[in-house]
Amino acid sequence: MTNPALRRPLAAVILAAGQGTRMKSAKHKVLHPLAGKPMLAHLLDTVAGLGAERTVVVVGAGGDQVEAAVAHREVDIAWQREQLGTGHAVLQAKEALAGFGGDVLILYGDVPLVSAATMQRMIDRLNFGIEPRAVVLGFRPDNAGAYGRIIAKADGTIEKMVEYKDASEAERAVDLCNSGLMAVRSTDLFVLLDKIGNDNAAGEYYLPDIVMLPGQASAVIEVEDPAEVTGVNSRAELAALELVWQQRRRVQAMADGVSLVAPETVWFSHDTAIARDVTIHPNVVFGPGVKISEGATIHAFSHLEGADVGPKAEVGPYARLRPGAILEEKAKVGNFVEMKKARMGKGAKASHLTYLGDADVGAGANIGAGTITCNYDGYFKYPTVIGEGAFIGSNSSLVAPVTIGAGAIVGAGGVVTKDVTADALALIRAPQTEKPGWAKRFRDAMLAKKAVK
Amino acid sequence: MTNPALRRPLAAVILAAGQGTRMKSAKHKVLHPLAGKPMLAHLLDTVAGLGAERTVVVVGAGGDQVEAAVAHREVDIAWQREQLGTGHAVLQAKEALAGFGGDVLILYGDVPLVSAATMQRMIDRLNFGIEPRAVVLGFRPDNAGAYGRIIAKADGTIEKMVEYKDASEAERAVDLCNSGLMAVRSTDLFVLLDKIGNDNAAGEYYLPDIVMLPGQASAVIEVEDPAEVTGVNSRAELAALELVWQQRRRVQAMADGVSLVAPETVWFSHDTAIARDVTIHPNVVFGPGVKISEGATIHAFSHLEGADVGPKAEVGPYARLRPGAILEEKAKVGNFVEMKKARMGKGAKASHLTYLGDADVGAGANIGAGTITCNYDGYFKYPTVIGEGAFIGSNSSLVAPVTIGAGAIVGAGGVVTKDVTADALALIRAPQTEKPGWAKRFRDAMLAKKAVK
Amino acid sequence: MTNPALRRPLAAVILAAGQGTRMKSAKHKVLHPLAGKPMLAHLLDTVAGLGAERTVVVVGAGGDQVEAAVAHREVDIAWQREQLGTGHAVLQAKEALAGFGGDVLILYGDVPLVSAATMQRMIDRLNFGIEPRAVVLGFRPDNAGAYGRIIAKADGTIEKMVEYKDASEAERAVDLCNSGLMAVRSTDLFVLLDKIGNDNAAGEYYLPDIVMLPGQASAVIEVEDPAEVTGVNSRAELAALELVWQQRRRVQAMADGVSLVAPETVWFSHDTAIARDVTIHPNVVFGPGVKISEGATIHAFSHLEGADVGPKAEVGPYARLRPGAILEEKAKVGNFVEMKKARMGKGAKASHLTYLGDADVGAGANIGAGTITCNYDGYFKYPTVIGEGAFIGSNSSLVAPVTIGAGAIVGAGGVVTKDVTADALALIRAPQTEKPGWAKRFRDAMLAKKAVK
Repeated sequence: MTNPALRRPLAAVILAAGQGTRMKSAKHKVLHPLAGKPMLAHLLDTVAGLGAERTVVVVGAGGDQVEAAVAHREVDIAWQREQLGTGHAVLQAKEALAGFGGDVLILYGDVPLVSAATMQRMIDRLNFGIEPRAVVLGFRPDNAGAYGRIIAKADGTIEKMVEYKDASEAERAVDLCNSGLMAVRSTDLFVLLDKIGNDNAAGEYYLPDIVMLPGQASAVIEVEDPAEVTGVNSRAELAALELVWQQRRRVQAMADGVSLVAPETVWFSHDTAIARDVTIHPNVVFGPGVKISEGATIHAFSHLEGADVGPKAEVGPYARLRPGAILEEKAKVGNFVEMKKARMGKGAKASHLTYLGDADVGAGANIGAGTITCNYDGYFKYPTVIGEGAFIGSNSSLVAPVTIGAGAIVGAGGVVTKDVTADALALIRAPQTEKPGWAKRFRDAMLAKKAVK
Repeated sequence: MTNPALRRPLAAVILAAGQGTRMKSAKHKVLHPLAGKPMLAHLLDTVAGLGAERTVVVVGAGGDQVEAAVAHREVDIAWQREQLGTGHAVLQAKEALAGFGGDVLILYGDVPLVSAATMQRMIDRLNFGIEPRAVVLGFRPDNAGAYGRIIAKADGTIEKMVEYKDASEAERAVDLCNSGLMAVRSTDLFVLLDKIGNDNAAGEYYLPDIVMLPGQASAVIEVEDPAEVTGVNSRAELAALELVWQQRRRVQAMADGVSLVAPETVWFSHDTAIARDVTIHPNVVFGPGVKISEGATIHAFSHLEGADVGPKAEVGPYARLRPGAILEEKAKVGNFVEMKKARMGKGAKASHLTYLGDADVGAGANIGAGTITCNYDGYFKYPTVIGEGAFIGSNSSLVAPVTIGAGAIVGAGGVVTKDVTADALALIRAPQTEKPGWAKRFRDAMLAKKAVK
Repeated sequence: MTNPALRRPLAAVILAAGQGTRMKSAKHKVLHPLAGKPMLAHLLDTVAGLGAERTVVVVGAGGDQVEAAVAHREVDIAWQREQLGTGHAVLQAKEALAGFGGDVLILYGDVPLVSAATMQRMIDRLNFGIEPRAVVLGFRPDNAGAYGRIIAKADGTIEKMVEYKDASEAERAVDLCNSGLMAVRSTDLFVLLDKIGNDNAAGEYYLPDIVMLPGQASAVIEVEDPAEVTGVNSRAELAALELVWQQRRRVQAMADGVSLVAPETVWFSHDTAIARDVTIHPNVVFGPGVKISEGATIHAFSHLEGADVGPKAEVGPYARLRPGAILEEKAKVGNFVEMKKARMGKGAKASHLTYLGDADVGAGANIGAGTITCNYDGYFKYPTVIGEGAFIGSNSSLVAPVTIGAGAIVGAGGVVTKDVTADALALIRAPQTEKPGWAKRFRDAMLAKKAVK
């Protein structure tokens, strides 16, 4: 219905000045992660996706942390030095929005899961029909409890917004609640904020008061999913919202054709991308940046982040893929194997007790159990290159930088410090010697010693 | 009540011709596993246990996969080339049942958990009293929703079977629903199927229509547990049924005298066998083929399949036992240890970071941390034999085929390529050399280099 | 309200003579652990914390196990040779309490979670106002079911205690139930027990009968949390109570400022101590004796017991810390690493596939992947000392007792059997040799052999 060409410029003001004391954390509340990404970043990514031209984060105590966290983004920081209410908080964004003409979304740093679709609906409504002064996002929780109520006409025109403590019985019976999120035109916003007072018990300036100022009517639209407007004030609330997010992500994965043997034991990140006919066994954790291709299997107790798993590849059980791990088609990484900045070529295997760091393993190569790429000298990291079809014997140590040629074999237990020629056998091994009867004499001596003790 | 000697021959027709499009899978729906076994295999094992003489699986799209999956069983495949309804599907089994005289169970490949007891009850009812033409399996779900209803007399005689959409208010108020499962005599089945029509919106031949054909009455029996007749149409439904199965299995295990510290984190397979006074710590996954004897302990994060764990043995945490792993009494396999086709004799220990493949470890032997049996040369596998009471030093590589004699000691870090005599000490080790001050000079150089970078 | 100076001597009688047959266990019921500690020990620790002067555990079948389990405590064992009811069981404590004058708490070995506060309230009530003869602990379950009911006045004075089967409809409508726990003065207890009869169907002497003996009135106090009086009769009930305990512990941890990414996957022990701003990722198991300092991170799939993790230290994923593991500030222990009686100094790192047992690692040292401390010779354990800033190359074996000097480097793959001087480089390594073309010839031969097979 909306013609993108007609869309007006968009700005977002994200309030993040709350103390967050109930988190009991030295870390700023909005920087606590949900689905592997800071709550604030969820909002910043969403408004960026909507093409917001300006984004202002209003901060208070601990604002330095927020400022540092968004330093790499095109975001303005506005400081609210005194805690004088949400209206006052939004007012601090005035300077950052100077010269901006368009629509303004007012969001909350601790309400991270508002969807782009919902934000767009708010903007669309602001520009629809007899344009309302403000659009308020309402929701109907299972238990409306002490939320502020919105009394509205059938067409969404707001008749009254009322705090629960001031509401009549009839008003309390209304289950449409105020989420606090709002869309307002920039030309109106600061004019309206200048008009509201602080004549209340707390002496604060309340943002919702702009809705009921005389003149033009405001409108409410409803969000279907209360999780979108769920705020986080404690770690328990954060964990609860995380669980809601995870459960939906799991259902979505299964609907997309991913087999989750035990969905309740799989933890996704915000950007986990999994193709059809992937099977994920119980107890798998996905950190950020993981992509799994069709037909791959992730066995139990695996932990992946920043990894790209190719078609029909096998991972785990107990595999740890760290950033830069790449498995090409049908590659296999087994139990107690760690990869970091390492590629396994097509059909290559590292099945047991191995560390592959800064390594490039050619197609069809076989990495024996207990193989370690010695990629670090305490100061710098160095690469290991293993050619196609090479066979690395068990318990090998490959001291990087080093190259094992295609088709070469490294004998078990070798410490490889020089490159190995393609198709050659490299042996680094002391001769085997035997002291007959020594073990028996040792055993007798130790048993005697034990008997004394 | 039933005299087995009087039982008549039994056949089963399993319908598996559905497209399963909601699974979004290249794998045929009935081959997706539940409790570690394909759904279809659950049914095939159950009917085999009942002594079915003939079993026909009716397949359609993707039937090749099903055919391949049951190739090792005495099962006939019947192809339903067109999707003309369940009646038409059963009709495709006519040829495979030619010459068979007895009772026929009609089952569904995506309804995997029907118990043998329930099937037997259906057969028994078919042959009881005034024998009904057909026995329909009914169930009473918590929410009858849009299921077809069964209107029956108190004695189970069916008066009417009606689709939900065609049902009156009074009929919808009945909560006895049609599972679709049925038992019919072979002499009646195909005669009846020839009589039903396809005069309905979809133009399909519906199997339940045989119930209401004029003549002999049919009977319903009820299944107590709705899970037995729960069908699977999506991966989410499969995961939900898996969870139901797991929860029951956990309750059963505890009732049998198994301690589950965190039952909700233990995943069983269809054939997991666990004795009394076994303790299972959180996060343990059992693949198929595991047997645990009395008094054993399975520590957290362990993963077992095809393993036989003896009395008072200890496994894990983080142990992976693969097919052919055998732990005798009081043997111990600890963290980050993998076993495959390997036996640990009585009281033998492998406590840390070890791979034992194609290995036989004698009683009381001690396998040091980091030991690897090098059982594979890229082409073939070879055995390692470790005698009773032997002591394998840490980080050893045992290059198979190789035998370590009883009571022998292998020095740490050795690569053993030749057999070691009993009671001998084997050493494979280069001399230790030292370059005084080298590390300090290296450190200074690297720090200088870092400073430049 | 209570003046501790006025408190009277306290004794506890803990009934543990039940057969526990529903546990199906060779282990005595009260010795089964909850939150990592035997049920009985929970009670013993709680009454010890209240300063009980005498504690008597009444045992029957399997009492030897209980006797052995409490041998290290100041606890008397009283044998109930015949199962003649709870009154008879308490009577067996008479001898052990001879000469004791004070208050007696009567507890049950399979009701482990009664809090010290609740016990104290029982004692306080016994000594308050018109002192009651006995104080009964009542509770109001969600479903009162078949519990015995307590009919009491508003002030808690008991009018009647009645078994469910003997209760009238009106009495059954009362939801205040009898937990069985009681406080009685020692001077009254055995006098009263001598007066009760066994004139009932089972011919047993029931402890609650002392409440309704003629004379002085008894009082009830209510426990707020039914979990405190939940009894355990089967492994399923034990697992259910464990889950209740864990869920509360998780909520408490989050309220204390600990981030649990997936609270439902973290398992605490009774004494787990975790500071503020610790982050715990999914699937972490805490055995007894763990302390985590502020700012530390415990990654997924870690397993800790008896470990002390310092500020901002990092553990896991897949780290196993066993008793005596100490991580100082910012130390890091990574995947597939096990520590036992080992200290990691400030900032020291062991990131991959390592075993550190009986080891002392200096500040800033770096332990390469695959390093093993060979601390055991099959009979005795020996220490490894690694100096500050030392660098242990990958796949090293440190044969204890051995000392690596500060700042020293051990080359990869070395088996260190002699001490290494500070700042020196130690190399233990055979020369690398190469057989050109050997691998190709081997490959061709093996492929030919495979073709034949």
